[in-house]
Amino acid sequence: MQKLVKSRSNTIGMPPGTLVHIGEKKRESTLMTLVEYDEASFRQKNLGFQELESLETRETGIRWLHVEGLSQVEVLEAIGRLFSLHPLILEDILNTDQRPKIDVNDDYIYVSAKMLSYQKEPGEFDIEQVSFILGENYVVSIAEKDTDVFEPIIKRLQQGMSRFRKLGSDYLVYSLLDVIVDNYFSVLEAFGDEVEIVEDEMVVRTSRQTLRTIHKLKRQILFLHKSVWPLREVLSFLERGESLLVRETTEIYIRDLYDHVVQVMDTTETLRDILSSMLDVYLSSSSNRMNEIMKVLTIISTVFMPLSFIVGVYGMNFKNMPELDWPWMYPLLWLVMIGISISMLIYFKRKKWW
Amino acid sequence: MQKLVKSRSNTIGMPPGTLVHIGEKKRESTLMTLVEYDEASFRQKNLGFQELESLETRETGIRWLHVEGLSQVEVLEAIGRLFSLHPLILEDILNTDQRPKIDVNDDYIYVSAKMLSYQKEPGEFDIEQVSFILGENYVVSIAEKDTDVFEPIIKRLQQGMSRFRKLGSDYLVYSLLDVIVDNYFSVLEAFGDEVEIVEDEMVVRTSRQTLRTIHKLKRQILFLHKSVWPLREVLSFLERGESLLVRETTEIYIRDLYDHVVQVMDTTETLRDILSSMLDVYLSSSSNRMNEIMKVLTIISTVFMPLSFIVGVYGMNFKNMPELDWPWMYPLLWLVMIGISISMLIYFKRKKWW
Amino acid sequence: MQKLVKSRSNTIGMPPGTLVHIGEKKRESTLMTLVEYDEASFRQKNLGFQELESLETRETGIRWLHVEGLSQVEVLEAIGRLFSLHPLILEDILNTDQRPKIDVNDDYIYVSAKMLSYQKEPGEFDIEQVSFILGENYVVSIAEKDTDVFEPIIKRLQQGMSRFRKLGSDYLVYSLLDVIVDNYFSVLEAFGDEVEIVEDEMVVRTSRQTLRTIHKLKRQILFLHKSVWPLREVLSFLERGESLLVRETTEIYIRDLYDHVVQVMDTTETLRDILSSMLDVYLSSSSNRMNEIMKVLTIISTVFMPLSFIVGVYGMNFKNMPELDWPWMYPLLWLVMIGISISMLIYFKRKKWW
Amino acid sequence: MQKLVKSRSNTIGMPPGTLVHIGEKKRESTLMTLVEYDEASFRQKNLGFQELESLETRETGIRWLHVEGLSQVEVLEAIGRLFSLHPLILEDILNTDQRPKIDVNDDYIYVSAKMLSYQKEPGEFDIEQVSFILGENYVVSIAEKDTDVFEPIIKRLQQGMSRFRKLGSDYLVYSLLDVIVDNYFSVLEAFGDEVEIVEDEMVVRTSRQTLRTIHKLKRQILFLHKSVWPLREVLSFLERGESLLVRETTEIYIRDLYDHVVQVMDTTETLRDILSSMLDVYLSSSSNRMNEIMKVLTIISTVFMPLSFIVGVYGMNFKNMPELDWPWMYPLLWLVMIGISISMLIYFKRKKWW
Amino acid sequence: MQKLVKSRSNTIGMPPGTLVHIGEKKRESTLMTLVEYDEASFRQKNLGFQELESLETRETGIRWLHVEGLSQVEVLEAIGRLFSLHPLILEDILNTDQRPKIDVNDDYIYVSAKMLSYQKEPGEFDIEQVSFILGENYVVSIAEKDTDVFEPIIKRLQQGMSRFRKLGSDYLVYSLLDVIVDNYFSVLEAFGDEVEIVEDEMVVRTSRQTLRTIHKLKRQILFLHKSVWPLREVLSFLERGESLLVRETTEIYIRDLYDHVVQVMDTTETLRDILSSMLDVYLSSSSNRMNEIMKVLTIISTVFMPLSFIVGVYGMNFKNMPELDWPWMYPLLWLVMIGISISMLIYFKRKKWW
Repeated sequence: MQKLVKSRSNTIGMPPGTLVHIGEKKRESTLMTLVEYDEASFRQKNLGFQELESLETRETGIRWLHVEGLSQVEVLEAIGRLFSLHPLILEDILNTDQRPKIDVNDDYIYVSAKMLSYQKEPGEFDIEQVSFILGENYVVSIAEKDTDVFEPIIKRLQQGMSRFRKLGSDYLVYSLLDVIVDNYFSVLEAFGDEVEIVEDEMVVRTSRQTLRTIHKLKRQILFLHKSVWPLREVLSFLERGESLLVRETTEIYIRDLYDHVVQVMDTTETLRDILSSMLDVYLSSSSNRMNEIMKVLTIISTVFMPLSFIVGVYGMNFKNMPELDWPWMYPLLWLVMIGISISMLIYFKRKKWW
Repeated sequence: MQKLVKSRSNTIGMPPGTLVHIGEKKRESTLMTLVEYDEASFRQKNLGFQELESLETRETGIRWLHVEGLSQVEVLEAIGRLFSLHPLILEDILNTDQRPKIDVNDDYIYVSAKMLSYQKEPGEFDIEQVSFILGENYVVSIAEKDTDVFEPIIKRLQQGMSRFRKLGSDYLVYSLLDVIVDNYFSVLEAFGDEVEIVEDEMVVRTSRQTLRTIHKLKRQILFLHKSVWPLREVLSFLERGESLLVRETTEIYIRDLYDHVVQVMDTTETLRDILSSMLDVYLSSSSNRMNEIMKVLTIISTVFMPLSFIVGVYGMNFKNMPELDWPWMYPLLWLVMIGISISMLIYFKRKKWW
Repeated sequence: MQKLVKSRSNTIGMPPGTLVHIGEKKRESTLMTLVEYDEASFRQKNLGFQELESLETRETGIRWLHVEGLSQVEVLEAIGRLFSLHPLILEDILNTDQRPKIDVNDDYIYVSAKMLSYQKEPGEFDIEQVSFILGENYVVSIAEKDTDVFEPIIKRLQQGMSRFRKLGSDYLVYSLLDVIVDNYFSVLEAFGDEVEIVEDEMVVRTSRQTLRTIHKLKRQILFLHKSVWPLREVLSFLERGESLLVRETTEIYIRDLYDHVVQVMDTTETLRDILSSMLDVYLSSSSNRMNEIMKVLTIISTVFMPLSFIVGVYGMNFKNMPELDWPWMYPLLWLVMIGISISMLIYFKRKKWW
Repeated sequence: MQKLVKSRSNTIGMPPGTLVHIGEKKRESTLMTLVEYDEASFRQKNLGFQELESLETRETGIRWLHVEGLSQVEVLEAIGRLFSLHPLILEDILNTDQRPKIDVNDDYIYVSAKMLSYQKEPGEFDIEQVSFILGENYVVSIAEKDTDVFEPIIKRLQQGMSRFRKLGSDYLVYSLLDVIVDNYFSVLEAFGDEVEIVEDEMVVRTSRQTLRTIHKLKRQILFLHKSVWPLREVLSFLERGESLLVRETTEIYIRDLYDHVVQVMDTTETLRDILSSMLDVYLSSSSNRMNEIMKVLTIISTVFMPLSFIVGVYGMNFKNMPELDWPWMYPLLWLVMIGISISMLIYFKRKKWW
Repeated sequence: MQKLVKSRSNTIGMPPGTLVHIGEKKRESTLMTLVEYDEASFRQKNLGFQELESLETRETGIRWLHVEGLSQVEVLEAIGRLFSLHPLILEDILNTDQRPKIDVNDDYIYVSAKMLSYQKEPGEFDIEQVSFILGENYVVSIAEKDTDVFEPIIKRLQQGMSRFRKLGSDYLVYSLLDVIVDNYFSVLEAFGDEVEIVEDEMVVRTSRQTLRTIHKLKRQILFLHKSVWPLREVLSFLERGESLLVRETTEIYIRDLYDHVVQVMDTTETLRDILSSMLDVYLSSSSNRMNEIMKVLTIISTVFMPLSFIVGVYGMNFKNMPELDWPWMYPLLWLVMIGISISMLIYFKRKKWW
């Protein structure tokens, strides 16, 4: 499970714009991939730090620089210089504990989102921050670790069959965000499956494990909600078309993406409500079981306590106990005791205790 | 019960506008019905795929194409070409896991809603997406499976007695939506009946079955809420009259429909609150029952434990137990024991334990 | 108790404006009272269906037609023709399961509200829809059943002492609504008394009856809230003075009425919160009682189980039990047993178990 | 404790503006104090009903009429005539069950607020309505009973050291409201102390008294919230400076007062949340205690039931029980029984049951 | 722990602007530090009361006066005179029980915020109010006690390497607020760690201590929320750029700070929800444990009660009990009893009771 709050204590008092990586280090070195394409051509290559420094501006086509790993701060600084980014933007890229946000400048738009990837263990998912810089004819995407979710995008660009390569850098950013949002659905799907499993076993048995799973799922849903919710505002801002960097033709796609995010939020909230309700049901179910256990105990006690008392009576050693000498007393007592037991059981049966 | 989250994992990374059916397949083939009418005439026929392709535009009157079944993607593509729909609209029609939405274009309005139909089992209902394309003089309605809820509309059109045939395509869409919303009320009615049944039996007995039903109803109400809620915005948007496709005379009808949806939401929320309260009552009631069981156990123990102790005393084998020789001791002991029992019972009676 | 959701299933697929009465039939025939007044004169008479049809328009003064009972749809149709009402308005009047609403047309304003009347049984009240048509110089009020709550208004009009008769039709509608809202307060007062009764007995005892009453009160409060809440919007709309039918001098009265409704809502919400809190207190109190029962059981068991064991020991039939022959052993054992009991009780006393 | 809902049933159907006192009668007769001051002079005297009638308007300075007690309706009528107040305003003054409200007229502003005074008993406070009429050069303040909270204001006016006497009637109303809001803080302080006391004892013991206090505090906090909340809107309205009666120099003071009220609301909500959480903690704590009681019972039973069985075995009277003749069997049995007890206790110790 | 509500009862009825310190006195005397800097120079010195009085206005550069300790009211009065502050501002500075607020005047902006510092004990933090006066070329910061959190700022000013000294007084205030907000994250981090510790031990054991900690953490989170929440509005107001005192270049920094505060609120709310859920889980877990205890008790009773009854039977002293003479009866009885025990245990095993 994620830590509830990530440590950023080492940044207190530092000037804003100081580049310190906040969050778990997920990848040691930094890997850079450069994709350049226009309607006619497509080129993809890995980039070293030196090459990054000596990159020249291009006249035509779109340049997409994809960076994986945040540990080499100097790479980020170089990117900042190359695309003249504000220091606060670089700080935001490194601070992986922040909410998805958008920052619109004259020359570029900064967008950050959370990529979720479901882990094997029930309710576990990994949160990774992905930042995008959208410029007139370039896109920089920065991920915390190596990920292959953007592979299909590269493949679609490479094939060049669709109109993709004719469209601008804003459409590329949309496509990347679309992949991220699509991933939310698979995480939610896995979540929904977990919830259904717990739902089924909950009413049958009330094990401690079930309780732990419910709590964990609820906690994780809260995290998921927190990670996705602000993306709504980000997309709503993008769609409103206040920046010239987002073309009008792209806006309908972003609106569609916005609808998807709202759908994700809706499902998240439904899941949260169901989980809350499940805790209540669990408690009631547990209290129900207790009732049943208590009934067994009470039936047993109610039947055997009077019987034990009766046999105790005739275990007394008084001289003067005439019953002890009656020959038919012993079998009679058995009849009496069986009679008592049966009438007790009938009584409990009537009371619907079993 | 519906799956909590439908799988759409096979669409990740695909370009937007890729036509893949998301959701359970509810009908194998696609059935098309074409209804054409104007003030004077009415014509209804089933349509094959070939005929669809060769449909010509009509000068006058309204053309209503009703499609059932989403599995034949090529039919949708043909419809898309025929009415020049945006690829994202077609994608929305196929994605049955989305919220009700509206998309206003220059030439047509896309509206989607959820049709609910109550199943036999308590709390079970089926959710089906119905999409509408409202054009100047045509309407396309696309349902997931064959449904006869729109039959009354066709009949009313056929009879031609009312002013229905004189009114535009917007009024037809309103009528179709009206049928869908009317269905919500029958689902709610069935729900309300279920809730009342559970309410009655809840305070009497606290069976595990009751608990399961409460949880199921609550979960289904959450789903229902999620399915209906966004329709409010859709209708509010339609009613605001920003598109010329919705005539002013139709707006009052849409406002009325809007009021109905708000009424549905109100009832849904009331039901949800009642169900939440019922879980609390269930728990309290269960705890109450436990108190009663415990009282029985405690009364039994409190009466018989001292008695068993007393008879145990006189079962001891000490040489020197003078009481054993007293002839009136045994009957006296019986009196003492009966006295103890009666005073215990009086004590518990006073404490209102039974 | 009201049904949670009223049946309207027989209206599905019917054209809008079809006049079908939705809700419980509360009165068989329809009763009409006509009140006509101006500054100088006052006339009141019962009206038959024939007279209604032949009513002529009046030049001066205000005409108030009060209708009780919704079962004769033809009466409503005649009223609709007489005052040229939109078919949807007539449908709204007949649909008694809808929220309070307002519909402003050029010639008249339609307002509907819920009249509450408290029943004898705790937490029971009757909900009845009252509709008003406010025209330039006429008012139509339509109630579900015969009710005498408007009697004081008629009396005040008759007496003619106040300025009432000089004021317009809008002031008459205000007065009628004012009576309805005043009734809310008496229902709330009865509710508050019920809540206080339950509150008092709740902490003392935790009977099943209390639980049932709490649940019922909570459920009814939810209904009350749902019935009154939308009236706020209705009055706010009226007060904003967008229709010429509401004179400026009347607006201050409507604002006052609005404040009263807000006061009703405030009280309703406070009552709801108190009832929710009461369910929690009930559960805690029940759990508390269980603790006390358990303590009794545990004290009894803890005292008598060791004692029973001890006397059991000396009931054994071993040949070689030297204690049995010691003459002072029996009285000593009594001392030991009394000692054990007393120290147990002291121990529980110290632990504050009683 | 206050009644949850005050009776106003005797006003139903009465014309608006009818002067009936709603609420508990807190003072039999009505007391009037007249304070007149300008920069140079200060005069204070008690006023009889006659003098009130013959009051003449003054040219300069501020006139402050303070009324205590609402039972003499004729006094209010005289005041209404003197300052030409709308009948609805007089009705509002007498209806002590309404929310704080503001009513801005051309010549005067009507403001009502709730004065809270803490009572000795935990969680008890008294709610009293205070109304203000703010005119160009006069202020009327009307309280339900005699109160000395405004004494410091009179003293400050008398001393004349500050600029108070130079400031207008709006500043006087501000000062009076400021005293009322300051009183909220002392009520809250007493409340906070109560909550802390309960908080401390709650985790230690779970007595029924604690439960009663928590419920009472929560209920009272709901009342307090309801009484103070609307004052926010009132002050916000005053501050917006839409009436010329409130000078610009006074607005900063009213903004400050507004901040105080928001602070009160914040604290109220925090207290409410803490109390809600306390109910949950109480329940958990009570359930915890039950666990401990059950453990004692179970340990006792688990130790003594097997032992009692064993001694019972050797109390049987079979002819053929060879163990009974073995001379070392009795001491051995003691060893076995002690061994069983000790191993049971070790087992429970390991399970952390005590 | 903080008192829930701080006492301010001694200020009731006092004129507004009266300078009384509300809140706990945290420092006896008042310490003043004066920092003066411009692009070229930097000067820092401690200031006595005399020197404060004789401070002269400076032409160039920024003057930052940092005050620690609120007990010497006369110092504040001198500062008020020096910078011509409104009396209400001085009152606000002394009232440490108020929410963070902003007050924009023509010549200066008053901003107050809450500084949190985590204490050693779990869930304990100290709240201290810090006020700022932002003038054209001066900043006054007033803290409740001596604190070293602003040290890094002074150091950065002293070093003069960054552009810090070139930037205006608004940037200095931003930097100070930034330090305060950064501290929120360390408090949250400590909180998150506490929550995780409790989370881990909660499902394992349900000790009373855990319960106390959960309640305390929840209470403190409510306090934290209340202390931080209003800062959002403050920053949003600052950023909107309505005052000329905040330069446009600083706005992007304040927007960034705003994002941080929103992040703090998000985390706070997530923690609160997790803690609420934990209380529910605790209760369920406790109820679960009770089930297990009850099972032990019931198993023991169910096994030994019938056995004790059986041996009791053969302890009876009837003359006519033929079984007693059968030689193989005693061993047979043992077999029967062992058989009963084993079948009981198998039964419970099947029911999954252990």
